[in-house]
Amino acid sequence: AARFNQDNYVVVDHHTYVFVGDGCLMEGVSHEVASLAGVQKLGKLICLYDDNGISIDGEVKDWFADNTAQRFEAYGWHVVDDVDGHNADAIAAAVNEAKASPLPSLICCKTTIGYGAPTLAGTSSAHGSPLGDEEISGTRGNLDWKYGPFEIPDELKEAWDCRQSGAESESNWRQQFAEYASKFPELAAEFERSVSGELPSTWESRMAELLKETAESGESKASRNASADVIGVIASMLPELLGGSADLTGSNCTIWDEAQPISDIAPGGNYVYYGVREFGMTAICNGIALHGGLIPFSGTFLTFMEYGRNAVRMAALMGIRNILVYTHDSIGQGEDGPTHQPVEQLANLRSTPNMSTWRPCDTVETVVAWKAAIERQSGPSALVFSRQGLPCQTRDEAQLNDVARGAYVLRDAENPVAIILATGSEVDVAVQAYDELSGEGVAVRVVSMPSADVFEAQDPEYRDSVLPPSIRCRLAVEAAHPDYWRKWVGLEGNVIGLPTFGASGPGAQVFEHFGFTPEAVAATVREMI
Amino acid sequence: AARFNQDNYVVVDHHTYVFVGDGCLMEGVSHEVASLAGVQKLGKLICLYDDNGISIDGEVKDWFADNTAQRFEAYGWHVVDDVDGHNADAIAAAVNEAKASPLPSLICCKTTIGYGAPTLAGTSSAHGSPLGDEEISGTRGNLDWKYGPFEIPDELKEAWDCRQSGAESESNWRQQFAEYASKFPELAAEFERSVSGELPSTWESRMAELLKETAESGESKASRNASADVIGVIASMLPELLGGSADLTGSNCTIWDEAQPISDIAPGGNYVYYGVREFGMTAICNGIALHGGLIPFSGTFLTFMEYGRNAVRMAALMGIRNILVYTHDSIGQGEDGPTHQPVEQLANLRSTPNMSTWRPCDTVETVVAWKAAIERQSGPSALVFSRQGLPCQTRDEAQLNDVARGAYVLRDAENPVAIILATGSEVDVAVQAYDELSGEGVAVRVVSMPSADVFEAQDPEYRDSVLPPSIRCRLAVEAAHPDYWRKWVGLEGNVIGLPTFGASGPGAQVFEHFGFTPEAVAATVREMI
Repeated sequence: AARFNQDNYVVVDHHTYVFVGDGCLMEGVSHEVASLAGVQKLGKLICLYDDNGISIDGEVKDWFADNTAQRFEAYGWHVVDDVDGHNADAIAAAVNEAKASPLPSLICCKTTIGYGAPTLAGTSSAHGSPLGDEEISGTRGNLDWKYGPFEIPDELKEAWDCRQSGAESESNWRQQFAEYASKFPELAAEFERSVSGELPSTWESRMAELLKETAESGESKASRNASADVIGVIASMLPELLGGSADLTGSNCTIWDEAQPISDIAPGGNYVYYGVREFGMTAICNGIALHGGLIPFSGTFLTFMEYGRNAVRMAALMGIRNILVYTHDSIGQGEDGPTHQPVEQLANLRSTPNMSTWRPCDTVETVVAWKAAIERQSGPSALVFSRQGLPCQTRDEAQLNDVARGAYVLRDAENPVAIILATGSEVDVAVQAYDELSGEGVAVRVVSMPSADVFEAQDPEYRDSVLPPSIRCRLAVEAAHPDYWRKWVGLEGNVIGLPTFGASGPGAQVFEHFGFTPEAVAATVREMI
Repeated sequence: AARFNQDNYVVVDHHTYVFVGDGCLMEGVSHEVASLAGVQKLGKLICLYDDNGISIDGEVKDWFADNTAQRFEAYGWHVVDDVDGHNADAIAAAVNEAKASPLPSLICCKTTIGYGAPTLAGTSSAHGSPLGDEEISGTRGNLDWKYGPFEIPDELKEAWDCRQSGAESESNWRQQFAEYASKFPELAAEFERSVSGELPSTWESRMAELLKETAESGESKASRNASADVIGVIASMLPELLGGSADLTGSNCTIWDEAQPISDIAPGGNYVYYGVREFGMTAICNGIALHGGLIPFSGTFLTFMEYGRNAVRMAALMGIRNILVYTHDSIGQGEDGPTHQPVEQLANLRSTPNMSTWRPCDTVETVVAWKAAIERQSGPSALVFSRQGLPCQTRDEAQLNDVARGAYVLRDAENPVAIILATGSEVDVAVQAYDELSGEGVAVRVVSMPSADVFEAQDPEYRDSVLPPSIRCRLAVEAAHPDYWRKWVGLEGNVIGLPTFGASGPGAQVFEHFGFTPEAVAATVREMI
């Protein structure tokens, strides 16, 4: 709204309605999002609470006795308490009151679950199972309902048939938008482009240019910093980009120079300080992606993905463009120790259906990963970045193009006897081992695999050209759980991975401690061939 | 306390102190556990809130403006507000006030982060980085601190040295306990056994008996129901067993006949209705396991493990006995559809270091799984059960004993040409395929693998006897993500798994839709050999 509305032309002006029950309000995510909505003063948000006092285990009074009205007042919400949830007029009045408030509103509706059912009303049995014939018949009697199954009386049908009023509203809006488009043609075009989810026409060429520049400059840096560079460029092209972090902005490198924090007094911003709320953040970004018109991305440490896992899975299940930036991607992050060091998270992301996961090894792969994530409209992407610095690998033109295919041959030899597969920070370890082995005359190939799922989606010819089925002497190197890699190296191959939790220490020392060194990789290859 | 304390003999009587900061109170789990503590009126719980108004991204006022005192009052807590967190006397007074309340207490302490530091006090820079020499020197000046680094003035050392008073307290308690032990020898012995985490001397024989009975009766039932049977037996032996579910008691089958719900008026109960709070539940069970004296287990659907993932990982990292019951373990649960159907969760549990995961195929394996989980003191166990009925497999004595080794040969042939590996509900599918193939003269082996981690811990001879390295024609069948299984079947093998999200429908139909049928398994084996 802040971006597109103009005097006398309010093209964005709708409320968001949320329905919650007792169970929803017990879940922790309800706290995270309601607390943030309160401080952001999201006056367009109206939440109806179906307060029936029942959850699956029975009457909630023994496990949920919050004063919910007081709780939401503590968040800075406007609360309409004690509304009869079976009285449509009372609800309508409450909604109008909510609309008039500049704060987000909670409407607490007292209801009876299974209302009217003779013996099951007000019990958890009315939640998950069909009522059954006898109970249905009694309910009809109690509600004085004289119509057959699926028979809708005309007067009710008419009262609920909003096709005409809806068509009129839409036509009015379209007429207003046509005027808006003639007065503000560029804004209107941008509005339509953003809402459709399309990228600007300059996207391809600018990103190709960025990739070329990045490859040519060959800078060594942490991929989280490389990511920040790319975000800056993308944000300059995409005003619909909405960034944020769960209280790790500086560590996740998710902010850019021109970013403006969103708040109640600056609703036109493009960066959200989500606070320490990983689950809420991911779920909010799901909602924003579903709403459309914006491309949300948000950051936290890879380990803390766990807090938001349910929303991560929902993004994949719903097939929406929610971009998840996960930094501090391995034991390489060092000092924070095992609580902050991911081990099983990469395997988890890769086995989540419809999730696209990237773990770039340098600035170049980072550009390609971000490009793929922005272009992918059919599901979320996880972009996994290092805390520590990474050298930039050299590539020829063909290799540069093949990064986008998810895996490619980064170093090669004539008739290689072994393949080393690696991702992220371990690619350079593999390349150093390659140099060592090449010096000894051992012919090996190094495959960089920033995105296994993208590679899997390639045609079999390409896949076999990168990983020839005849070469079974394969070693995967990744500072993450090794089990996943059997998919690529099989039973004859080997994995240098991390089957245990990490350890606290300077990143380089922790890497060495767990055997992620060129020497160990080269030694393993020598043993295998 | 309710179990052991007697008139004039209060052997359990301590408070639990919790320290939280702004970040902790933003996290959703703070809502889940505080809400439950409120309704349970946990008067022994005292929480000190370090309210310094700073999180990593800066001053929290822009993303965290809750009235935290009001919020906790809404949970039914006693709140001591506006305490000067730099004033020890004020804190001591607040703690005394908290101890006098029958409710859980929150003590809100206003503090300044980096107190005394000339330029960094009250800023987020004081959170994660060292202050540096200049700032340290200024801090010393501001605090009038005249001592060198690591130099502790005598008067402070004496004031904080609680060795003598602690020794006296302990000695008093031991003296009281000795009297208690002479008056209530059985209770005292039970107290010592429970606190040490030891199982009763009858454990082994009773469990061996249960296993024998279960194998003999050969009942077909859902493994969640088989689990309920085992829980009943275990609970009769272990008064320290503390059950619960996140509002799915009936579905998880986590309750038993003699279970007593815990509440403020029945603190001696042994079952917690956790409400819809998977993360809070798992974290609370972590706390209970760390405290000792009780063996917590708790239930939810396998998919909803995601809500509690962080606490699941922490249980594994801390190496504590927290038993996680996860039912509705696959698309076999049917009608609830993809949001409720796990796909990647088994792989995730299996790649979590120090997690022991069991997915039993029938009543017999369920007994073994529970026995292993109770006996495992070095880490958590995940017990994964079906919603749908499962036939009981026949086994000879040796097979019955080998279940505890994590994987074993369930059906065999002379010189098998192929191995079918399966877990849980897919074991019977594999056995039916075996019957079909055997009828055709195809010699195959069926390996049931209820716990891959337990199998991996066996000696190589046993592992090779179950999965001979020479037999590479291997087919894994599991209604879960297939990638994990490459670890066992390699590149030459095959997996009938579920690489996508599930679908809604009756369980048997969904199974058939995704190819988990004896016919499909047999056909795949025929193609492979």
